[in-house]
Amino acid sequence: MTSSDELLVVGGGIGGLSAALSVAHTGRPVRVLERATEFGEIGAGLQLAPNATRVLDRLGLLERVIDAGVLPDRLVFGDALTGHELTRLEFEDFPRRYGAPYVVLHRSDLLDILVDACRERGVALETGKHVVEIENTTDHVVAHCQDGSRYRGGAAVGADGLRSGTRKMLSDDEPTQSGFVAYRGAIPVQDATRPAELTEVVIWIGPGLHFVQYPLRRGEIYNQVAVFRSPGYAAGRDDWGEPDELDEAFSVTCEHVREAKRSLWRDQHWSMHDREPLDNWLTGRTVLLGDAAHPMLQYLAQGACQAIEDAEVLARCLEQHDSPQWDKALRAYQEERIPRTAEIQRVARVWGDIWHVDGLAAMLRNEVFTQRRHDDHRHIEWLYGGT
Amino acid sequence: MTSSDELLVVGGGIGGLSAALSVAHTGRPVRVLERATEFGEIGAGLQLAPNATRVLDRLGLLERVIDAGVLPDRLVFGDALTGHELTRLEFEDFPRRYGAPYVVLHRSDLLDILVDACRERGVALETGKHVVEIENTTDHVVAHCQDGSRYRGGAAVGADGLRSGTRKMLSDDEPTQSGFVAYRGAIPVQDATRPAELTEVVIWIGPGLHFVQYPLRRGEIYNQVAVFRSPGYAAGRDDWGEPDELDEAFSVTCEHVREAKRSLWRDQHWSMHDREPLDNWLTGRTVLLGDAAHPMLQYLAQGACQAIEDAEVLARCLEQHDSPQWDKALRAYQEERIPRTAEIQRVARVWGDIWHVDGLAAMLRNEVFTQRRHDDHRHIEWLYGGT
Repeated sequence: MTSSDELLVVGGGIGGLSAALSVAHTGRPVRVLERATEFGEIGAGLQLAPNATRVLDRLGLLERVIDAGVLPDRLVFGDALTGHELTRLEFEDFPRRYGAPYVVLHRSDLLDILVDACRERGVALETGKHVVEIENTTDHVVAHCQDGSRYRGGAAVGADGLRSGTRKMLSDDEPTQSGFVAYRGAIPVQDATRPAELTEVVIWIGPGLHFVQYPLRRGEIYNQVAVFRSPGYAAGRDDWGEPDELDEAFSVTCEHVREAKRSLWRDQHWSMHDREPLDNWLTGRTVLLGDAAHPMLQYLAQGACQAIEDAEVLARCLEQHDSPQWDKALRAYQEERIPRTAEIQRVARVWGDIWHVDGLAAMLRNEVFTQRRHDDHRHIEWLYGGT
Repeated sequence: MTSSDELLVVGGGIGGLSAALSVAHTGRPVRVLERATEFGEIGAGLQLAPNATRVLDRLGLLERVIDAGVLPDRLVFGDALTGHELTRLEFEDFPRRYGAPYVVLHRSDLLDILVDACRERGVALETGKHVVEIENTTDHVVAHCQDGSRYRGGAAVGADGLRSGTRKMLSDDEPTQSGFVAYRGAIPVQDATRPAELTEVVIWIGPGLHFVQYPLRRGEIYNQVAVFRSPGYAAGRDDWGEPDELDEAFSVTCEHVREAKRSLWRDQHWSMHDREPLDNWLTGRTVLLGDAAHPMLQYLAQGACQAIEDAEVLARCLEQHDSPQWDKALRAYQEERIPRTAEIQRVARVWGDIWHVDGLAAMLRNEVFTQRRHDDHRHIEWLYGGT
């Protein structure tokens, strides 16, 4: 058993590693306890908006992130039924406006960059460490692992994702099933059945479905995600979300989307969850971060971005309060982060509803989108703005 | 029995009298057969958009219409729940842009003006003439009245309203019940509980309801209409639309609307109907006009306006084709009028749906309305524009 004033980070995903690296930058010792036998990420593509790339820039990682990914020119929303463009958001101006660019990259590429940076900064990275209990004492924490090992630290960060074990110390809530299913596919760009422009993030929206397309890894890989409301889930069936539902859901879409859908992986799919916002992330000296704290639906593409924001705020709060003041620092962290992430969890749900409306509401939605001036940033300023 | 080449107009409402007057202007003899014992109009307020006031101007009646009514400064849409303005349409520019002003006046005042003008033009005006059958022969029509009298004419116009008997010659369709109920009240302006600006037409819109306020008769009378979706109708009850439903429906609205609602008449109410568009208005030498041809929901305030448009087109078609060519003229009239009025019938339904949405769709609707530039006329150009 170690006996240090280390920060223990439970979970070595994007949130946990970002937190570890951010805190290590302040000079504190940090140890990451990852359950899996190696670091890895599920899914493929990841969108990083300027509120996250600003943080990565301050961590000295932006150049590596850009090198590993793609700097798209714009985000385009299209009508999945008609194939017509609804609105677009140009990214060219983002560095001037928001202090950093919009980047898309492979999740595993970002994870590799974070692992390397953590190593360079002296973060202790442990794999195969499944934390089954975190013991809060008056002045330290002890993480008990399934393999019998224990780690003592000054405080613990629960960054163990949607199905966080750490969160159980605070809440008996469960993930909220949205009833939507995602099919993904990240394939060599030359194998893509029907890519959109390789310089664009394209989101096709339609009744109860959407389809996302964008390039990864310097344009070598093409990433696509199809999401739809499962009729089987709505009907209470056990075998919901199977490929026949995918085909049926997308049969109404325009030719471009139907063609593009053909290159998705059909052997696996993911159901989409979030949770209700919590009003407390802290128990003793253990605090939540990332999806463990605020799992959100993907419609604002802010899951990873908010985990990265968490990481920076946590490090700043620890810096502003001396180590004996762990409690004060952790309270300051959650006081700053809970309102913002709760708002984003809520808005992400509404944003999904807006994408998926049908009939008259879709007509109104399309009117809102097509009438929007391309240089109107009012709906994203609150998300991407700041420092 | 008369034996002339007169045009017989069945129904002496706004549509019938406008048609009679327009045709009389071309020099043709016209006879109006009105079922009631005197000319009169149900309802109170009437909105005349420039597409109708342009016609009235060409008939030499615009000055009288303006003198009898009010020239409002603008139309304002408000959110019935919050009381906030959503958008506005300024009327100041209308004479330059559309060739005529927007006028609101009492229905009976417009009817009086039309009756007087018809008399001045030598139109034969008959009341107490309930036409029960129109006989089409090869070269004339005979209108048979319930009192046994018969009128022979060159052609007949069925302008007998929503529940038109003439229409039965062409279609066995029935009015479509919208399930919405209207309560009205036109009262001395000093008795109005809570008038809006006296220079405005104000339409408060909310979930399943709306409330209209505007002045009439040089500002002496204040006209209000409350419309709501009847829960009793939806439940299949016989006694639907009673005042308790009115009170319940409007209990959720802002204080201004709740206060204003207090001055409505509670002893009568109207259910709102339209019909599906017909693709033929003509049988023999009998043709439909106004509500008999294209009854529409009130959301575009175009019911009377379209009847007035019908009247002018009918007169023009009769002028362009000689009397022996009645058939040709009547066909030309319906070919011009059916597509336009069918489109307005359809759009009026959608427009009503847009006013009455709830939840997310209302949020989107409010976004569309509030984002609209006040000088953006794209959504009315097709309706008010033309010559």
